[in-house]
Amino acid sequence: MADLNLSDIFTYIDSRREEYLTRLKEYVRRPSISAHGEGIAETAAYIAQVIGRLGMRTEILPTAGWPMVYAEHLEAPGAPTVLLYGHYDVQPPDPLELWDSPPFEPMVRNGRIYGRGVGDNKGQHFAQILALEATLAVRKRLPCNVKLLLEGEEEIGSPQIAAFVAAERERLAADLVITADGPVDASGRATVHFGVRGVLSFELRVRHAARDLHSGNFGGVAPNPIWTLVHLLATMKAPDGTITIDGFYDNVAPPTELERAALERLPLDLPTVMAGIGLDRLDAPADRGYFERLALWPTLTVNGLHGGYGGAGSKTVLPASALAKCDIRLVSDQRVEDIFARVKDHVARHAPEVEVIFQGGMDPSKTPLDSAYTAPIAAGLQAARNEEPLLVPAMGGSLPEYVWTRILGVPAFVVPYANHDEANHAPNENLELDRFYGGIKSGAAILAHLGQK
Amino acid sequence: MADLNLSDIFTYIDSRREEYLTRLKEYVRRPSISAHGEGIAETAAYIAQVIGRLGMRTEILPTAGWPMVYAEHLEAPGAPTVLLYGHYDVQPPDPLELWDSPPFEPMVRNGRIYGRGVGDNKGQHFAQILALEATLAVRKRLPCNVKLLLEGEEEIGSPQIAAFVAAERERLAADLVITADGPVDASGRATVHFGVRGVLSFELRVRHAARDLHSGNFGGVAPNPIWTLVHLLATMKAPDGTITIDGFYDNVAPPTELERAALERLPLDLPTVMAGIGLDRLDAPADRGYFERLALWPTLTVNGLHGGYGGAGSKTVLPASALAKCDIRLVSDQRVEDIFARVKDHVARHAPEVEVIFQGGMDPSKTPLDSAYTAPIAAGLQAARNEEPLLVPAMGGSLPEYVWTRILGVPAFVVPYANHDEANHAPNENLELDRFYGGIKSGAAILAHLGQK
Repeated sequence: MADLNLSDIFTYIDSRREEYLTRLKEYVRRPSISAHGEGIAETAAYIAQVIGRLGMRTEILPTAGWPMVYAEHLEAPGAPTVLLYGHYDVQPPDPLELWDSPPFEPMVRNGRIYGRGVGDNKGQHFAQILALEATLAVRKRLPCNVKLLLEGEEEIGSPQIAAFVAAERERLAADLVITADGPVDASGRATVHFGVRGVLSFELRVRHAARDLHSGNFGGVAPNPIWTLVHLLATMKAPDGTITIDGFYDNVAPPTELERAALERLPLDLPTVMAGIGLDRLDAPADRGYFERLALWPTLTVNGLHGGYGGAGSKTVLPASALAKCDIRLVSDQRVEDIFARVKDHVARHAPEVEVIFQGGMDPSKTPLDSAYTAPIAAGLQAARNEEPLLVPAMGGSLPEYVWTRILGVPAFVVPYANHDEANHAPNENLELDRFYGGIKSGAAILAHLGQK
Repeated sequence: MADLNLSDIFTYIDSRREEYLTRLKEYVRRPSISAHGEGIAETAAYIAQVIGRLGMRTEILPTAGWPMVYAEHLEAPGAPTVLLYGHYDVQPPDPLELWDSPPFEPMVRNGRIYGRGVGDNKGQHFAQILALEATLAVRKRLPCNVKLLLEGEEEIGSPQIAAFVAAERERLAADLVITADGPVDASGRATVHFGVRGVLSFELRVRHAARDLHSGNFGGVAPNPIWTLVHLLATMKAPDGTITIDGFYDNVAPPTELERAALERLPLDLPTVMAGIGLDRLDAPADRGYFERLALWPTLTVNGLHGGYGGAGSKTVLPASALAKCDIRLVSDQRVEDIFARVKDHVARHAPEVEVIFQGGMDPSKTPLDSAYTAPIAAGLQAARNEEPLLVPAMGGSLPEYVWTRILGVPAFVVPYANHDEANHAPNENLELDRFYGGIKSGAAILAHLGQK
């Protein structure tokens, strides 16, 4: 990797901090809540206009849901083509009363900008846009070919992205995809995620009697839907954490040597992590490391279980119905469709009265740690942040990265620019200004290094 | 048993049906909701006055809760003394919108009187009071010694009854206790219950993290309180219904020959029972009969289990806390204190993080089917209803009968006068007028037959 001198671009960026902040505020001020449809069309038009001013060919592409904003700048023949992905929609801001300042009136306090979407994801893809703008302003050209795709319904689970990418394979063709989303590692170090766990959400629903019964008059003769769920769930996961659905681990690959080495390099301050969430023990099994368990192993989480009486005191009721909401985080070659079929089979065998309702899913995704693009991305981050980035085999959460790795068939990287306490999806969402400006530099530096490939 | 001619008393009762109905309405019109304290003192004073007019020595006895109304008529030397127990408090009437007529404006429709408390329990003990009144009017004396005890907080679990009975052992001394409460068998046949299951209510509570976590960011490393409860509960009861708490069945006696024979004589229309509550299967184990399971075997019912997300769609949350509310129905020599200790031990061994909170309990009670008082009670019911009553070893539900069998140390019988669909604790509570008048005759006939002992 050539040692690039990017001081001209960095100086340019530093000289425009105030302007950039004002423009970020202007963007964040526009609500774009995909869950309610509020402000989506207006915000898509607004950001398309911002991008158009860079001289990029910009379009608003309709989908069966909210539109995609797409732009491209393909004037670097021979250089790689990078697809930058982000989303212009935001989470609903409630509970409003927990915000210290109004969610759509962005405000700076203590070196952070507060507002819904500043971190997730407006501030991060806006940094990428400004990186393009700064590079074009200083160098009059981009060092590689760039495609930019901003989705309008990431916060409602990206229901259209797979079909869209499949239909637009040619338009979106690229050598790699970079997503600037999520927070950096808790240590504050710049981070590159090479994969994500997938997710499968489903509900288990059971009703026995037509109405709640008296536990004295029917206890011992009438089946209890809570016991039905308890005994079913107990067949799905052992107390030691092993998931006991037939064939569940069939497509789970053990960590590679590279992954294991990368995981071991991740800084971990376990007492601080545990104190931060008030835990005094971690979940079994104890023989797998913290990051390995988060990144490379699947889970079965009961998100909620509800049935019968939950008020004060006691009520001798034998409830008529109960439900459990669950999610499974998928890894390696586990696929939503296959695992859901296994769940249905398992439930049909163990508790045929229980209805299994699919509620959404996203396949996992993984890009090899030794991808040809690892070095330029890491070098770009090193140049911008002056520290070696952490390479994380996969994040514990889920993003629709599989559309890049499996549908487009290219390596995909998540390169977050936000602080680890950005409070995304929560009140007082924020972005450290230093990380916003650093994100612009990182974006520019990554492009420059990719251009050297 | 001498064949008693009671036609004079029955004729007297039949001639006063309208007056009795008017007086029942006057009683039911007075709310006496122990849960809220509404009208309790007024209703106690009212019914004490009604009883006083019979020439019984009547007192309102204070307790640490709502008062007891007590009366006695002890002018039959050599004859047995019977304690008649009932309760003048009623359930709250809500949900009000489901009543077809106001709960405290008793109204007759289709041969039934509707109103809160008509069945549970005002109509039933008022029938006993009228039986005393009619007998005194016709025969100028009672055939046996009578003590009458009306409680004011049965509907909130009789928290004072045990202490009261223990303290008033001498005053309450009797040869037997009769409670007219609950409904007759679903077949409509007059019924005598010789026992009740006890009940122990408790809550299991667990919190792991200080706040709800993201199932992606923490799934696989942070413990899940719902899984903790699921795995704990699965160690407490097997899928076949066997309760697997250590020593749980130690004090459960198998049915006696007499009990088995009595259970076999009970009419059972299982398809109708199941259709009535919308069930298409009964709970395991299949080798025990319906009534045996209800009357003579203990249960562990989860009354409610709540934790995490329960709304529409999915939410990828790893909840911080969960709770399960449970009740155990106790039989034979199982005792609340002992079984609660076993539950606590079991939980401490299997899931020490789970808190076990006692929420109330009542020991079981049983009177032998071959009690010396079985014959006169059955003969009384036969005389009044012209059919042989069903003898039920125990009811599935719980009443504080143990205070009679264990504290007073005498046989205790539950002799319900209400129709099986009285809708007690529910909207449109009702009592068939025929059963109300029949209850008065039954009360008088049982007293007459007891007097022959």
